[in-house]
Amino acid sequence: MSTSNKSAATVIARAAKAAFEASQLIASSERVQALHELRNELASAKEDILAANRRDLEAAQQEVNAGHMSSSLLKRLDLNKGDKWESMLQGVIDVANLPDPTGIVTYASELDDDLELYRVSCPIGVLLVIFEARPEVVVNIAALAIKSGNAAILKGGKESNETSQLLSKAIQSALSKTSIPSTYIQAIQTRAEVSALLELDQYIDLVIPRGSNSLVRNIQNSTRIPVMGHADGLCSVFLDETADLDKAVRVVLDSKTDYPAACNAAETLIVHEKVLSTVWPAVAKALLDADVHLLCDSPTISALQSLSPAPAKLTSHVRTSTLDSYTTEHLSLTLSVIALPSLSDAIRFINSHSSHHTDCIVTEDPAAASAFCRGVDSAGTFVNASTRFADGFRFGFGTEVGISTGRIHARGPVGLEGLVTYKYMLRSKGEKGHIVGEFGTGDGQKRYKHTNIEAKTVPFLE
Amino acid sequence: MSTSNKSAATVIARAAKAAFEASQLIASSERVQALHELRNELASAKEDILAANRRDLEAAQQEVNAGHMSSSLLKRLDLNKGDKWESMLQGVIDVANLPDPTGIVTYASELDDDLELYRVSCPIGVLLVIFEARPEVVVNIAALAIKSGNAAILKGGKESNETSQLLSKAIQSALSKTSIPSTYIQAIQTRAEVSALLELDQYIDLVIPRGSNSLVRNIQNSTRIPVMGHADGLCSVFLDETADLDKAVRVVLDSKTDYPAACNAAETLIVHEKVLSTVWPAVAKALLDADVHLLCDSPTISALQSLSPAPAKLTSHVRTSTLDSYTTEHLSLTLSVIALPSLSDAIRFINSHSSHHTDCIVTEDPAAASAFCRGVDSAGTFVNASTRFADGFRFGFGTEVGISTGRIHARGPVGLEGLVTYKYMLRSKGEKGHIVGEFGTGDGQKRYKHTNIEAKTVPFLE
Repeated sequence: MSTSNKSAATVIARAAKAAFEASQLIASSERVQALHELRNELASAKEDILAANRRDLEAAQQEVNAGHMSSSLLKRLDLNKGDKWESMLQGVIDVANLPDPTGIVTYASELDDDLELYRVSCPIGVLLVIFEARPEVVVNIAALAIKSGNAAILKGGKESNETSQLLSKAIQSALSKTSIPSTYIQAIQTRAEVSALLELDQYIDLVIPRGSNSLVRNIQNSTRIPVMGHADGLCSVFLDETADLDKAVRVVLDSKTDYPAACNAAETLIVHEKVLSTVWPAVAKALLDADVHLLCDSPTISALQSLSPAPAKLTSHVRTSTLDSYTTEHLSLTLSVIALPSLSDAIRFINSHSSHHTDCIVTEDPAAASAFCRGVDSAGTFVNASTRFADGFRFGFGTEVGISTGRIHARGPVGLEGLVTYKYMLRSKGEKGHIVGEFGTGDGQKRYKHTNIEAKTVPFLE
Repeated sequence: MSTSNKSAATVIARAAKAAFEASQLIASSERVQALHELRNELASAKEDILAANRRDLEAAQQEVNAGHMSSSLLKRLDLNKGDKWESMLQGVIDVANLPDPTGIVTYASELDDDLELYRVSCPIGVLLVIFEARPEVVVNIAALAIKSGNAAILKGGKESNETSQLLSKAIQSALSKTSIPSTYIQAIQTRAEVSALLELDQYIDLVIPRGSNSLVRNIQNSTRIPVMGHADGLCSVFLDETADLDKAVRVVLDSKTDYPAACNAAETLIVHEKVLSTVWPAVAKALLDADVHLLCDSPTISALQSLSPAPAKLTSHVRTSTLDSYTTEHLSLTLSVIALPSLSDAIRFINSHSSHHTDCIVTEDPAAASAFCRGVDSAGTFVNASTRFADGFRFGFGTEVGISTGRIHARGPVGLEGLVTYKYMLRSKGEKGHIVGEFGTGDGQKRYKHTNIEAKTVPFLE
């Protein structure tokens, strides 16, 4: 780490923390106003932003032509595709209209006469958000940070540099029309800055990486700051012995093929041995018809080979699996398949092979559903429903910060709630203030009351 | 790290994870039963345990005589002092009687007809708890882990080794009378095992260090596993310009002297310049009378020197502070004092010098109280109440896992709630199961309902 990178990063991180602290005394209505200003700034700067985006796209096209970039990455750069621009603007307003996640009392207790304790939600502090390619994420994340009261430092992919710079300019302009400090949202450009920032745990409170497995893993391995997100999305579907055939076909097909590159797509199918010759062949045929490649263990491949007539694409699309198949996130039309003799074997297999993201059972047996949901140690345990439902918007959160496979703080699809923590406020209204020395078990000493207080907000906050 | 330590640690960690996973299918009533068994096992083994404790004490006495151990550490070892033994047993029953923190629905929504989403609290997984000296912590932490459904690996101080081994034996006996695996709670003896375990983030989900600043800091610096707790307890009291003199004296004195070695004792006093000649002298006199040593900046020392008559102990107990004074956790009858010109200066000073544990304002001005509580970025912000109230028992949690200065997951005094996370369970009751491919904005596509469900528990869990 060069000294200049480190000192530049320290300046940025300190400014972010100072902006966060200063913002705590600003009414949350100003944050909502900032979001409306942001939408307007973006609308006014549309021509310039889309021109910058075209320059990014042209540069990216040359990278694709030279074989240095994938065409799918190129597509994600385009801010003018379909309704992406309008969605981005609407997204800012949607976030503005969500309920304020801060200032909510989640525990309140009268410890003694005139001594009131409130646990109240509040922002976390300074977020460092690192993402790839899609430039609209700058706006999306900035909106979430502003709404939740967190300062943020954003690092986008270098491919979208020109676009991101103008988006950041619009964010700055919007903030300048409010009393929120302009350093509340800062954009950085280089990986060296990221590396330096990842060391500054005294200023940065949470890192949110959104991007490839390797991006997330690298970040997790190089910082003491808590990281929210997921590296792998190794989801599985288990066909229980009582699985309904139609449900099995529909749920497996949707989980695998609805959007194979998503983290909530299924990568592994577990077949109960008792349905190898009943449910499995129909599921396999549907998968093969949908052009899915299957990596099968010996029992599941045999079950297909013994069919007459043999399923189409059996020779072209079905291969023998290896041990690695069951820990591989294919992110494509490939599915690993294994047969197991029981529900409890399936639960153990999932707990030791899945990435604890989302796992599904197809079953008609309520006891099996219950055991699966309790026994599978994942952020999502689903019954007869596609793994693809694991998503903040589908869950009804209004927005999604990301999906976390950690067990600490936020787990699964994370909405605005994942961007707040809480603090305890204790107020004495007593004539002499309150001291602990007066409480105890002895004669003449006070006892704690611990009487529940019904309150949604803290009454003494202005 | 030697290979043998690493492989021994892996065996322990794997067994803990397997025990955790197996325990998810066991009814929570068994966990309560295990706690009652534990109390009975301890009662039956009382003689043996106290004999082992006497051996630990004798060995410790020799260490104290040789100057290798402090006598305060020795005192903490004694399991037979006062009502410590009975409190330990009662503590187990108290934890057993607390409400179950798992299985509680905190969000439930109907995404579509017959498609129900539940966010339900569940244990985190495997805890690694590292503590010093006090042997009763073994029992205390084991009880919390069992109650909350987490497996735990416990490492106590080597000073209490003989006692801890018998306490662990009692825990094992208690578990063996239930269907909870005996490896659910494991005790380890050596630091080498701890070091090896801190690397096993695939098996261990949360580290809880309870002990000295250096213990916590070392652990935070040597693991990727989330750590819950606090290194420093640098709490402060701010005497605002409207501070009431009596409240100021009472709150400062209690915050500093009620138990100076505690993490929630005040280490810094900030005096508004406007009360330097009014409130501050009385507070200083009370502190000096209580034998507190003061490290003062120039304005606060001058204010005392100009008094006539000079306060007692002015020459013996008052010294000039240095910059380091304001980042030092004295843990003794020493207090750092500084004068500042405004509330906002005090807030900035606290945010940059305190350890974000607990800070207090003494004020009669509601606007100042509100600004302080919002602006000070600490787990606890108190008004006219001693910092010593920052404690799980005083807050009414029934028990305390520890106090966290982190902003992620649990913050401030942590009760049983800090030992649970949540997972999302999604169940389709639909005739064909549920797939995302049917939802969209197009004609003939389904829209999400997102209708709130009133539920305290998940109806389909057995």
